[in-house]
Amino acid sequence: MDSTSLGTVETKYQTFCQPPHELILKSGEKLGPITQAYETYGELNKDKSNAILVFHALTGDAHAAGFHADAKKPGWWDPMIGPGKAFDTDKYFLICANVIGGCKGSTGPSSINPKTGKPYGLSFPVVTLPDMVEAQKRLIDHLGIKKLLCVTGGSMGGLLALKWAIDYPDSIQSTIAIATNYRHTAQQIALHEVARQAIMSDPDWLGGDYYGKSTPARGLSLARMIGHITYMSETSMEEKFGRKLIGKEKLGYDFSHDFEVESYLKYRSGNFVQRFDANSYLYLSKALDYFDLAEDGHGKLADAVAKAKCDFLVISFTSDWLYPPYQAKELVRALKSNNLDVTEILINTSYGHDAFLVEVDNQARLIKAYLERMNKQYVKIQT
Amino acid sequence: MDSTSLGTVETKYQTFCQPPHELILKSGEKLGPITQAYETYGELNKDKSNAILVFHALTGDAHAAGFHADAKKPGWWDPMIGPGKAFDTDKYFLICANVIGGCKGSTGPSSINPKTGKPYGLSFPVVTLPDMVEAQKRLIDHLGIKKLLCVTGGSMGGLLALKWAIDYPDSIQSTIAIATNYRHTAQQIALHEVARQAIMSDPDWLGGDYYGKSTPARGLSLARMIGHITYMSETSMEEKFGRKLIGKEKLGYDFSHDFEVESYLKYRSGNFVQRFDANSYLYLSKALDYFDLAEDGHGKLADAVAKAKCDFLVISFTSDWLYPPYQAKELVRALKSNNLDVTEILINTSYGHDAFLVEVDNQARLIKAYLERMNKQYVKIQT
Repeated sequence: MDSTSLGTVETKYQTFCQPPHELILKSGEKLGPITQAYETYGELNKDKSNAILVFHALTGDAHAAGFHADAKKPGWWDPMIGPGKAFDTDKYFLICANVIGGCKGSTGPSSINPKTGKPYGLSFPVVTLPDMVEAQKRLIDHLGIKKLLCVTGGSMGGLLALKWAIDYPDSIQSTIAIATNYRHTAQQIALHEVARQAIMSDPDWLGGDYYGKSTPARGLSLARMIGHITYMSETSMEEKFGRKLIGKEKLGYDFSHDFEVESYLKYRSGNFVQRFDANSYLYLSKALDYFDLAEDGHGKLADAVAKAKCDFLVISFTSDWLYPPYQAKELVRALKSNNLDVTEILINTSYGHDAFLVEVDNQARLIKAYLERMNKQYVKIQT
Repeated sequence: MDSTSLGTVETKYQTFCQPPHELILKSGEKLGPITQAYETYGELNKDKSNAILVFHALTGDAHAAGFHADAKKPGWWDPMIGPGKAFDTDKYFLICANVIGGCKGSTGPSSINPKTGKPYGLSFPVVTLPDMVEAQKRLIDHLGIKKLLCVTGGSMGGLLALKWAIDYPDSIQSTIAIATNYRHTAQQIALHEVARQAIMSDPDWLGGDYYGKSTPARGLSLARMIGHITYMSETSMEEKFGRKLIGKEKLGYDFSHDFEVESYLKYRSGNFVQRFDANSYLYLSKALDYFDLAEDGHGKLADAVAKAKCDFLVISFTSDWLYPPYQAKELVRALKSNNLDVTEILINTSYGHDAFLVEVDNQARLIKAYLERMNKQYVKIQT
């Protein structure tokens, strides 16, 4: 364990049982009581002015950094969060919560429905990104934090951070949105739809009522394979795998695996189905497809983001074809048209969408400097 | 029926029963006797110097142009083939054959294995692109054609045309390779592998032995959905669908379809599973992934294509992300390094990979002029 590691960390759980304990969802349905799994790193300072809320991506969780007891792998953004790192836990207090609809401790389709004593399955209401943001606002309120220094996240996390900036403009100083856009295009929806159809076509899915039985592992595995292809770039796949054969000198002339890239997809998706709930994949991908930041402006993005007051850092990556830089550019244009303070960074990398997780050095330097500036500019809410 | 239509056409079948009636496949296995389904359009001239062989793409067939009796839709390349069209049937004699391994009349996994009296299924040997080319050479020999004016095709068809140019350098005047490359990259293999896994994960696939029972329609449908996304460009999907909702004013907050792009994928893939054999999808996608034109040069593309003697027209499309233009560029560079006559065209379009089928006007003008030049330059083989 080096000096920049957080060491052992633990997930905490907060269930909101006091009225109003139910969330009124965008769909009109109610959900509650809700539990949120979250982790914190660093110390909240006396005036509670050093808190940063991190949102995770589609298949992420509250465990952003440090190690769970006996775990070999750290949290999903560990290279970025810790003492002296981009999100420096010697200075800042980090919070990361599992989104509702997820399967990592927060209330989701695999949770027990208190009314039936059985897992929700598809009776879980469709939650949206705005619902997830509202749920996490309750958590931040519960922690007694009136104004966050920053909200941040990559991919879906970036969309959530942007939504926070619009919904709670007075409660943040800055937003760092990474590898993200402002709503899904037809291609992004299409890729998700194939993933959903893969899950729902699996006979083990049983209309979502598979808990305690076989899981729809084949369908979820296909969904994840598609995901992996979109997370890498053509270049990074070529650099990593090219046409390398696996464990054989020659082509097999059969339908087993020949190429390393094939066995990589199988291996990674095999791991994934062990740790992720297929119904959560349906709910979260749907939430992503539904989300449209421009909605609050009746379709006009510039009008929608006019509610925002904070400063913005928008980071995109040249080889990200899932959330291409031109989409971040559209977002930046809309923010700037409202005279907001927007810093726009395009990082040159071959890592594709995964860059927000693995392109650490460039991001870390930028974010560190940006947070220092935001820390100086932080204005406390007058109460 | 307008004057540029071929009107009603028919598929012919040629079975090669005379010794050597078996193909020795690249895998070492033997296949035979083989049948090839093919169509011809126009008239072969007296000295048999006006023949053009068209190779189809992954899910294409011998029916490239004109109408089958009672059919409402013409062949897959009808806008390009007919009287006065790019491939002008008033001047040229067009031939298009279904590849072996396919399911449209040529011998493939759904054909009856003469040794067992049952469909081959997975006992069908893995065929490669070189095997398909060799099979079609037999057909051209059978038609008594010594030298083709041109071999052409888009996507897989382009790869087959390139392979012909290397394997039978004296038997062609020119090659027109469209929307293609020279071997699959890791990303292309990965996309195919997900499609294959989707088919093989379908419980109805039954190890390939599903003939006469339920077909693995769910798996094949998923494979086709992935295909469709890769055939369009992000831009063309956005132009065609954007975030348009289908048949409802609002989001449904459930897991039925909300967006037009979702129902498009369902509709198109639903049609596809009615007309295509899942095992053929496995075999043909595998053949594509296996193919490496550089193989004949021990990995050096320039050495491999040194065997070619014909002229080349290489067409690629700006928004084609499945077979991106830079890959065609690599091919062109290798051809040019051998002092071959290479015409390279990059067509600006938003249609993506589908452009080779739908971007008719630009292609037609180019191809028409190119074929006229080739027709003038045609040198008959001395016999």
